[in-house]
Order: sequence, then C-alpha cells, then structure tokens
Amino acid sequence: MARIAFIGLGNMGLPMARNLLKAGYTVSGFDLVQAVVTQLASEGARAATSARDAAQDADAVISMLPAGRQVEDLYLGEDGLLAALPAGRLVLDCSTIAPATARRVHRAAAAHGVAMLDAPVSGGTAGAASGSLTFMVGGATVTLEKARPILAAMGRNIFHAGFESAGQLAKLCNNLLLAVQMIGTAEAMALGTRCGLDADVLAEIMRQSSGGNWVLERYNPWPGVQANSPASHGYQPGFMAGLMAKDLGLVQETALQAGAATPMGSLALNLYRLLLQQGLGGQDFSAVQKLFIDQQ
Amino acid sequence: MARIAFIGLGNMGLPMARNLLKAGYTVSGFDLVQAVVTQLASEGARAATSARDAAQDADAVISMLPAGRQVEDLYLGEDGLLAALPAGRLVLDCSTIAPATARRVHRAAAAHGVAMLDAPVSGGTAGAASGSLTFMVGGATVTLEKARPILAAMGRNIFHAGFESAGQLAKLCNNLLLAVQMIGTAEAMALGTRCGLDADVLAEIMRQSSGGNWVLERYNPWPGVQANSPASHGYQPGFMAGLMAKDLGLVQETALQAGAATPMGSLALNLYRLLLQQGLGGQDFSAVQKLFIDQQ
Amino acid sequence: MARIAFIGLGNMGLPMARNLLKAGYTVSGFDLVQAVVTQLASEGARAATSARDAAQDADAVISMLPAGRQVEDLYLGEDGLLAALPAGRLVLDCSTIAPATARRVHRAAAAHGVAMLDAPVSGGTAGAASGSLTFMVGGATVTLEKARPILAAMGRNIFHAGFESAGQLAKLCNNLLLAVQMIGTAEAMALGTRCGLDADVLAEIMRQSSGGNWVLERYNPWPGVQANSPASHGYQPGFMAGLMAKDLGLVQETALQAGAATPMGSLALNLYRLLLQQGLGGQDFSAVQKLFIDQQ
Amino acid sequence: MARIAFIGLGNMGLPMARNLLKAGYTVSGFDLVQAVVTQLASEGARAATSARDAAQDADAVISMLPAGRQVEDLYLGEDGLLAALPAGRLVLDCSTIAPATARRVHRAAAAHGVAMLDAPVSGGTAGAASGSLTFMVGGATVTLEKARPILAAMGRNIFHAGFESAGQLAKLCNNLLLAVQMIGTAEAMALGTRCGLDADVLAEIMRQSSGGNWVLERYNPWPGVQANSPASHGYQPGFMAGLMAKDLGLVQETALQAGAATPMGSLALNLYRLLLQQGLGGQDFSAVQKLFIDQQ
Repeated sequence: MARIAFIGLGNMGLPMARNLLKAGYTVSGFDLVQAVVTQLASEGARAATSARDAAQDADAVISMLPAGRQVEDLYLGEDGLLAALPAGRLVLDCSTIAPATARRVHRAAAAHGVAMLDAPVSGGTAGAASGSLTFMVGGATVTLEKARPILAAMGRNIFHAGFESAGQLAKLCNNLLLAVQMIGTAEAMALGTRCGLDADVLAEIMRQSSGGNWVLERYNPWPGVQANSPASHGYQPGFMAGLMAKDLGLVQETALQAGAATPMGSLALNLYRLLLQQGLGGQDFSAVQKLFIDQQ
Repeated sequence: MARIAFIGLGNMGLPMARNLLKAGYTVSGFDLVQAVVTQLASEGARAATSARDAAQDADAVISMLPAGRQVEDLYLGEDGLLAALPAGRLVLDCSTIAPATARRVHRAAAAHGVAMLDAPVSGGTAGAASGSLTFMVGGATVTLEKARPILAAMGRNIFHAGFESAGQLAKLCNNLLLAVQMIGTAEAMALGTRCGLDADVLAEIMRQSSGGNWVLERYNPWPGVQANSPASHGYQPGFMAGLMAKDLGLVQETALQAGAATPMGSLALNLYRLLLQQGLGGQDFSAVQKLFIDQQ
Repeated sequence: MARIAFIGLGNMGLPMARNLLKAGYTVSGFDLVQAVVTQLASEGARAATSARDAAQDADAVISMLPAGRQVEDLYLGEDGLLAALPAGRLVLDCSTIAPATARRVHRAAAAHGVAMLDAPVSGGTAGAASGSLTFMVGGATVTLEKARPILAAMGRNIFHAGFESAGQLAKLCNNLLLAVQMIGTAEAMALGTRCGLDADVLAEIMRQSSGGNWVLERYNPWPGVQANSPASHGYQPGFMAGLMAKDLGLVQETALQAGAATPMGSLALNLYRLLLQQGLGGQDFSAVQKLFIDQQ
Repeated sequence: MARIAFIGLGNMGLPMARNLLKAGYTVSGFDLVQAVVTQLASEGARAATSARDAAQDADAVISMLPAGRQVEDLYLGEDGLLAALPAGRLVLDCSTIAPATARRVHRAAAAHGVAMLDAPVSGGTAGAASGSLTFMVGGATVTLEKARPILAAMGRNIFHAGFESAGQLAKLCNNLLLAVQMIGTAEAMALGTRCGLDADVLAEIMRQSSGGNWVLERYNPWPGVQANSPASHGYQPGFMAGLMAKDLGLVQETALQAGAATPMGSLALNLYRLLLQQGLGGQDFSAVQKLFIDQQ
C-alpha cells in the first residue's frame, strides 16, 4: 500500500487524509497549523515538520490548499517540492485554482518527470468526511489510472475531464452554473413567497418541473424548506459565500483570458460581492437568499 | 362522461383536445382558425362556430390561448363567456397569463357562480401530444378535485399551487428559474468548450455534480450533446424563444407589482430580447446558446 | 391673469404653487392633507374643499400626484374632473406616470374637449422651490404655447418632447440614463478609492474626461467630494431612492410593452430594489453608493 | 531641447510623435512595422532599428503599445530597456495596461534609477492628431514636472492621479464609466425612439437634463443625431469596440484583485463581448447601439 504525503489539513484536507488512513494508506501530514498535524498524528499519521519532510519517501503527494498562490509556493521555485521529488512520483493537487496556474504547475511537473493530476473536488466538508467527494480530474489517462485507488478512498465519483488543467476548468464551469442556479432559485423563492405562495409547495413544484436543479434537490436556500439545509440552520456553512466568490473570481479570470461572455456568471460574482460587503462572506453560499428578503 | 368545450386549438390546444377525445370525453372545439376546428372535428369532436356555441351544454370549458388579452376577451365583458355560463359550470384556463389577469377572471367567475381554476402547463408540445403535461393549478381544492379526471386525461403531474392565480405564479417562478439555468448552462458550455473541454464530457460532469439541472438532463443547448434536443436539430422548437421572452415579461410585470428584486430574471429577459432582435424569436429557447458562440 | 387650480400640494406641488402665486396667478389649491392646503391659503391661495371645488372657474388645472393611480382617479371615471370641466380648459399633469396611463388621460381629455399636456419635471424639490424646474412636455404645440407662461413661472427649461405622453417618455428615458450613470459613477468611485486613488482627484479627472456626466458635475455619490451633495449630508434627499425605483419600474413597464431590451436599466432597477430591501428607500438615490462600500 | 525615443508608432503613437517633432524635439522612432518608422523618418525623425537603438542617447523614452505584454517585453527582463538605460533617464509609458503590470515596471524602473510615469491617454486618434489628448499620470510629482513640457506637446489636459500606477487606475475608472454611460445612452435612445420619440429631440432633452453626459455631448450612438459622430459614419472608429472590451477586461482584472463589486461594469464588458462575437469588434465602441436595434 502506497505512502502518501498530505499537504494542507484544513476543513477539507483533514477529513480527506483521515479517509486515506482508514483505507490503510501510510500518511505523513503537514500543515502550517500545528494543531491539525497533531490531530492527524493522533489518528495514525506521521506528523511531518515541513512539506519536504512529508514528501520524502512518499509515493504520492496530495495537496489541498486555499488558493493558487499557496500551490505555486508549494511546488514551484527553487525550494519547491517538484525540485525535490524523484522522477516518477505522483502529485495530486486537489485545490481549486486558476486553470492557468494549474498549467504552470503541470509544465513544471513534466519537466521534473513527475506525474501530475489536477483533481479539484465538489461535495464540501460533508462529502470530505463521508468519503463521497466528486473529483474532476485533468491529466494523462495513465496517471489517472495510477491514482484511481487513492482517489476512490476519498470520493465516490471520479470524472476524467481531459488534458492538464481540465479538472480545474470543469470545476469552474460547474461552480459557475451552481452559483447561477442558486441565485436563480433564491429569486424564484423570494418572488413566489412574496406573492403569497407557500414556500414548500413552490419548492416542490419547481423541483419536479423544468426548473428542477441540484439546489432544489439538496440545498434549498429558503429557511425551513429542507430540514438539513444550511438555510434551516442559520446559513452555517456548508460551502462559504466567500469561497463561492473566490471560485466565481477564477471563472472571470478564465473567461477574460478566453474572451468568453458570461453575463450570468459576472452578475453572480457581483451579487456575491454585495453579500460579502454586508459582512456575510462567512455564511453559507445559500445566504445569497438574504439579498432578496426585506431586512427591516 | 362530461362534455367539454375546448377554446383555442393551437400547437398546444389541439393535442390536448385530442387526448380528451381519446379518454372518451365529448368535445366541442373552437378556434379562430377554421382549419384546426375542422381537423379536430374529423377526429370526433363537434365543430363549434363560436366560443359561446362550444360552451352551450358543456359541463366544463377549457381555454388554451396565447395571452391574457385573449383570455380577458373570452371570459369578461358583456359578451364574455362567464355571463353566458350557467352557475356551477367548471372553467379551466390553461393559458399562461399574468397572475393579476388571472385574478380578474377568477373574481368575475366567482361573481357568476362559476367554478374556475387557473391551470397553466409545462411540458411543451411534446408533453401535450403524449398526455404527459404538468399542470400547476390555482383555485379551490374542491374545484380541483372535480377537475382532476379531466386534467389527468391530458397530463401526468397535477400540482395544487394554492389560491386563485397561484398556478400562474408557480408557472412564472418555474420559468424564471428555467430561463436562468438555460442561460447559465449555455454560458458554462461555451466557456468550457472555448477553453478546450469536450462538450460531452463537460455536460456529463455538470449533470452529475452540483451544477445538475433539468436543462442538462433533457435539453442541453450545445448542438450534438443530446440526440433529441432542439440544439441538435437546428434549434427547431420545442418551446420558442419568443414565448420564453413573453413569460419572462410576465415575470417582470409580477415582480414590479410585488416590489421584488430579480436581477438574474431581468438579465435573462434582456438576453432573450437581444436574441429576438437578431430575428431568432422563432427558434427554440435553447438557441440563446448562439449569443455565446462566435458568429464569424 | 389666469386662475389656476393646483391639485397635489406635496414636496413638489407646494413650492410649485407658491411660484404661481408669486407670479401673480390666482390659485386655488387642494390636497388630501389639510395642513398643506391651509399653508398655501395662508400664502394667498384659496383653500379648496375638493379637486372639483378647486377646478370650478379655473382656466387651468395643474396636477402633481404621486402615481398613475391617483392621476386616473382624479381625471377619469364618472366623478372624474374631466367630466366636470367645460370644454376649452387647460389641464397640465406634472406627475411622473406611465406613458400608457398618460395616453388614457389624454384620450379622455380630447373626448371632453379639454386641452391637455403631460409635463413631468426634473430638478427635484430644490428646483421646485427656486422655480428652476425642467419640464418635458407631451401634447399639441398650440396647447404648449397657451401653457408656456404658466410653466415658465415654475421652471427654467421647457422641452417639447412631442406627441401626447412624449413628456413622460422623455422623462423616463432621462431617468433611466440618470440611474445608470449614478450607479456607474458609484462603481467607479468605489473601485478607484479601494485601489488607493484620492476620491477628489478621481472625481475631478472623470468629470473633465470622457466619463463626465451630470452626476459628477452636481451630485457626486461619494461623501465629501461635493460640499452640497446629499452624499455629504448623510444622503438626505434630494431625490429619494424609493422614487428612483418607482421611475425605473415605469421604465421597465414601458420597455416590456415596447419589446425593448434595457439590460443596464433592468440592472439599475434591481440594484435599487436591493437598496430598498435594506431599508434605505427613504435616503437619497445617490445612497446606492452604499452597496459598494464594505459595511463592517 | 530634449531628445526623445518613441517606441510604438501605431494609430496613436505616430501622431503623438509627430506633435513632438512639431514642438521641436529630436525624435528617434521605432516600431515593429517598418513602414511607420519610415513615414516618421520622412517627417524629420531618426529611424531607429530597435527599441535599444532608439533609446541610446535619448533623454526620455515614450512608449505607446497595445497591451501589458508588449510593455513588459519592452522594459523588463535581461534584454529589457530598463537595464540599458543610464540612471536618471525619463520613461513615460502612455499605453493602457493593468495597474498591476504598471507597478511591476515602476518597481523595476526604480531599481534601475530610472524616473518613470504611467501616463495613459484619452481622446482617441483625433486627440492624438490635434495634440489635445488628456493624460492621466501616475508617479512622483517631481518626475511629472520634468515630463510636463513633453506631455504638453501632445496633449491639453494633464492630470496627476497620484502614486505609481494611479494613472492607469484613473484611466480604467474613467473608461468603466464611459462604457456604462455609452450603453445607458444607447438603451435610452433605443427605448425612446422605439416608443415614437424623435431621436434628435430626445438626445437634446437628455443632454440638457440630469441624464447629461459626455456621450450625449460629443459621441451620440444613434446614427444621424450628430454629424461628426462615428454613428453617423457607419460606426467607423474612433475608439474600437474591441479596445473598449480590452479596457473593460482590465477593469475586471483590477476589480477582482481589489474585491470590488462592479455589476454595471461587468455587464458592460459582457455586452461588448456579445458585440465582438457578432464580429463587430472593429467598429467604433458606439456600435453597441446595434445590440438594441432590430436586425431584420
């Protein structure tokens, strides 16, 4: 069974690393926050003192970091991990970052003879804990097949999106659409209830009709419609509005470079920015519903 | 078995009336276009010479008309049908019209002792032909129970949205959301493919992820992704862009009266208007995809 | 000198009526609020007990009312003023209402042989007080020439926009553009200052460059840039955000009927609605700046 | 009189360099297109064979290049111009580029002891030809005072926007606002004329009212309203739609980095992208009017 270095043990990384331990992998973990390293060590991992320390002797490196800057810091440059890894090792970056950044890391990995995948996830902290994440993977098919058992220990669906950075692209397209239908759902719920419709009835009609979407199935933004939704628990995340704004920013970066028009996606980003400017970036991304409810 | 007057035998009304005939109802049909009246008569209906002629002796009147103006002309005023109907008759208006207009007709029906439902449909011409429409119904429960067998002959799902005009409200909320996620899907497909993703792969990833929606399930706007979609057949409708623009206009009318913010819905209407101004209002509403594809 | 009935003595109507008194006109005033009638009477007007009472013996009727509903109530119907006015009298409606409503009143006036103008104003309460309003006038040239001395007693610029209701149309087009450039200015000010530019310097550069507009000349939404702006006085109106939202709603009603695309105007309305839903509808319309400033 | 190296002799740079010659400066010019170098040489400049050749012995270097990439190529890196310039020389970059890029060049210039200004312009090719450009300048006051005579030979207004890159920021804020009010004006013109207003009358009313702006003063997008506007000459640029889209992209890059909400600016970019996707990027930016006119 392979030895895995896991870099980045935050809200997502820690439960993902746990699932690797449960599956029998040997894990050495590192994070800038000592407490989570200690925590993972108490569950059977080796506590590494640096990313390089974690990676020595590892067959595979997995990173789960907040943004592209941290990913570049980790892998590139003179002190970067890629320069230290023996050729043939496997690198899986599960962070959500700009496709252009992912391509830079891929190119450097190739130059060092390291097999790399970009493998961002969806499914949130709940999916990370239950091992039911979705992976959207960019990179060579042969590399994916090598990595598949490791990914399968952490997730349920593994999609091969295509070429290097294609995982990031697919993730961004998905989250663009997710944000648009979250806000569209919030508008429809607010309009209907403001006109007197019962929220439960409206939600159910749309769910079963041509307005049906994942938000209506799992994540209705109107408080009380679904017992388990963040909306029914004070919009505790779940997936933070601030992170959705970050992803929508990456969508816009990508659209700018591609010369693509995304009027709905741009509006979604701006509505999330208005939400953040009200100080609600730490709430669940379904809290965008609040923009459409009278606040008096 | 009840006798039914069917007013409005267009692309939707004609197949709906046929399904009533198949279910054994006695139908008298009327339309301003003589040819469709003759057609329905050749299939077993009585050809009426006017709406009043169709309605005499009918237990129930069903109307399926293009817009609120025609519905008001049919039912209200001195020559209107409501004045001519004996108390206790059933009126089902299946047209998609402004909730405010529906309320006016409901009030007049109540004043004449006529039991009325607003019962707009979704499912398009295909659903009308196959008898699998969805009805969103506003009005009294007791009236709905009386009407249920008739509706069941034409559709599969029958939702009781609530009070008088609630069917129209639910329909508009649904179509607001449908338009938003159609355009959101079109943006995501265009962005991803412009960046090199395979359209089929991207569509499948989003369909199974948090971006999943009815459009991705049944009605992908990218040509070739789904063999049966309008996009794969030159954007032949289906549900015309011009009709979606009409419904989104009703959404805005309703939002204006309610003081509701619908930034996504407003943008959707405006994007459909830009499409119409390119002369594409007669194509399927998924042709909004064309806005996001280089036209050179 | 003509005798004038003035109906509607609110924040705009009262100072307008005062300017007629100052110009030597005989004025009889009416409002549902008795206090303002008494106030105007104390300044030399006759206190009328009803609109009909005010209008009897008047050569001209001026109305300045909150919305189309009140204008229709005043003029149309069996008890309406038009039925009571002798042919040949002059009616000037200075309210801002939907062009479609204005056309209904014009038609009724013509049927009664009454000469009518729609003559909405811009310039706000300050312009009303100082007699420097701008009138945008719809109706016959000959009627405008008859009314010109009266309008000149209340305003400085008198534009003949064209046919019946053209004054309302021009007013709505102007306010659409005003709202768009108010928000555009607010975005530019927020973006520049957030990046470190000095607000005064940025405002001055744009004012003298191709970004120049009336908002930058007179009404900068950034606090402190202009000593006399509402922004520098806690966003006290001025022109209330709620009234701008009302006008933008009329723009959308008009655009819906005309099949016109107004993506910027629609977005402006929705941003004002978000502002209203934060309880800020009573502040000046430049308070839309607050949407773009961190609220923590 | 100072010797000036002018790098980038395109539609803007060539007439700017001419004005320096007219003012008595010694100019050596370089461009990748040989023809324009030859042209300028025939008017009295020295034809340089490279940027380095142009810059040798020059007291000041002026660059007017299409985008940040070319500016970085020119100044930075091992072969870059900054490494070749003696300390104390003056560099004026008049290109419109991202503020972040401008800051990188400023930092490198400072490291080499070169005095630099970012000095993007507005006024278009007409302003460049007539020497009436507006310069928005970022950098030290003492540097600006050294550069002022040179700038004054090419432009009329010289604004000191502030710190290094502040010129770019001010330019972007201005163009954000310009684009928003161009589209707002186009919407208002289309709505009013569609409802029957005379285009000239409407344009004049708004110009003199609170909707007044630079577009209405100088650059009305409706064909025929102003004899000299691009709209009245088949939308020949002027300022190309493709360049406005580029600037709006820089606005979005800047807003993304600053975490600023710019809903109007984002919508403007997307509407320009839709225009470009119709193949109209080479027309004047006022051709956005076409989006709002029926194309049948």
